[in-house]
Amino acid sequence: MASADRHAFASPLRRGVYEAIFRRRDMREFLCDPVPDQVLARVLIAAHHAASVGFTQPWDFVIVRDLERRREVRRVFDQERERNAAQFTGPRREKFLSLKLEGILEAPLNLIVTCEPDRFGPGVLGKVSIDEVEIYSACLAVENLWLAARAEGLGVGWVSIVRNDALRKIFAIPENVIPVAYLCIGYVKDFPDRPILESAEWAKRLPPRTLLHFDSWGARDGRADPLTKAIEDGGIWREIFPDDSPPNR
Amino acid sequence: MASADRHAFASPLRRGVYEAIFRRRDMREFLCDPVPDQVLARVLIAAHHAASVGFTQPWDFVIVRDLERRREVRRVFDQERERNAAQFTGPRREKFLSLKLEGILEAPLNLIVTCEPDRFGPGVLGKVSIDEVEIYSACLAVENLWLAARAEGLGVGWVSIVRNDALRKIFAIPENVIPVAYLCIGYVKDFPDRPILESAEWAKRLPPRTLLHFDSWGARDGRADPLTKAIEDGGIWREIFPDDSPPNR
Repeated sequence: MASADRHAFASPLRRGVYEAIFRRRDMREFLCDPVPDQVLARVLIAAHHAASVGFTQPWDFVIVRDLERRREVRRVFDQERERNAAQFTGPRREKFLSLKLEGILEAPLNLIVTCEPDRFGPGVLGKVSIDEVEIYSACLAVENLWLAARAEGLGVGWVSIVRNDALRKIFAIPENVIPVAYLCIGYVKDFPDRPILESAEWAKRLPPRTLLHFDSWGARDGRADPLTKAIEDGGIWREIFPDDSPPNR
Repeated sequence: MASADRHAFASPLRRGVYEAIFRRRDMREFLCDPVPDQVLARVLIAAHHAASVGFTQPWDFVIVRDLERRREVRRVFDQERERNAAQFTGPRREKFLSLKLEGILEAPLNLIVTCEPDRFGPGVLGKVSIDEVEIYSACLAVENLWLAARAEGLGVGWVSIVRNDALRKIFAIPENVIPVAYLCIGYVKDFPDRPILESAEWAKRLPPRTLLHFDSWGARDGRADPLTKAIEDGGIWREIFPDDSPPNR
């Protein structure tokens, strides 16, 4: 494979990508230190370099510093959290209510990633029967932003317990623009080793082998496929992390 | 900031994240060399470590090696490409038809990333009024996969010119599961410096400052905001790329 994989990154660069992926967390607690403009600028440029269908770059970024608007968002969150809690009963409901699920007011910065479909007109290369493809692109931008932020030491939390009609009203977002992600951003005291919902025993990490299907849904190859063996073999990380295990693996 | 940003990655690791983001490309041409199972396993584990709403991990991965099924997908692509072409006229249509938009048969591997909503039941933490949040999570997994693949020297191409009903039929995917991304994966001869649709002059990269809004949609602060200045200042990259400019910036 010496020739085919010649575009692979040198060891520390490749490790950097996996470190960001494994150490990224959905954060709800933030320090009040401001986010330097040059760091935020790099993170936003990283988001802007996501893939987009037909190179439409359908995203915009609403930088939210104003505290009064954030208080309005927080009120919407509180209402929606009540509705979300109503989906659960008993100890599950109690656990839900014990979780801190946002850092809207304490984070030094909030950020909305939006999607404007048909930005350059109704014809979009790559948009035929799947109408949501531009929203998918905006999500790719969110993950770029999240990983670049992690590398910069910045925490990001995605608050999905909101309502898009309320966000449109609070931030004067036009009807044709979709608020895709409401994010809280700031430095953090610590990035926990595991996802907060995993530590809180809200849900378990699924074993990766259970997510594999071979050529047809449900065809799992009885663990005989070499890929299934590889995905369960910690040894595949040795060339990336020669001195230790990858974080949270 | 010495204390607040203490979780920032060391220099080469941080650079690795930005290298992956700036050097990632949507590829349509592939070498026939096989993808080693341990490399594919790492890339899939990277996808599995994306954020997911309520830690639902709604994704599955259909590994597509079978050539007959891929020929069926290619036939669907050909039909959908005709429909997509009909959205354009004149030179724009000719340019569309001149572009290679998939590598379904030549890539050594195809992969479908799916989304299964309500995987653990109808109550989902974080899913209230925005019904698509789990699809958003699956998209985050796609970007993780894409960036890890780039670091490994693997090219990925997202074929959105397909039909989900056809994919469900070809791969026996249940009705409640959404095929989010149909991907072609393989080593490549070269990663081009710029996105293929940018080089082909299909669309231009938007200047990042035009995507910024301050506290309210359309409020652009007349270039006076320090963030706008920072996002236009190439000097913000000096600490990440001390010896040269970042790729394609």
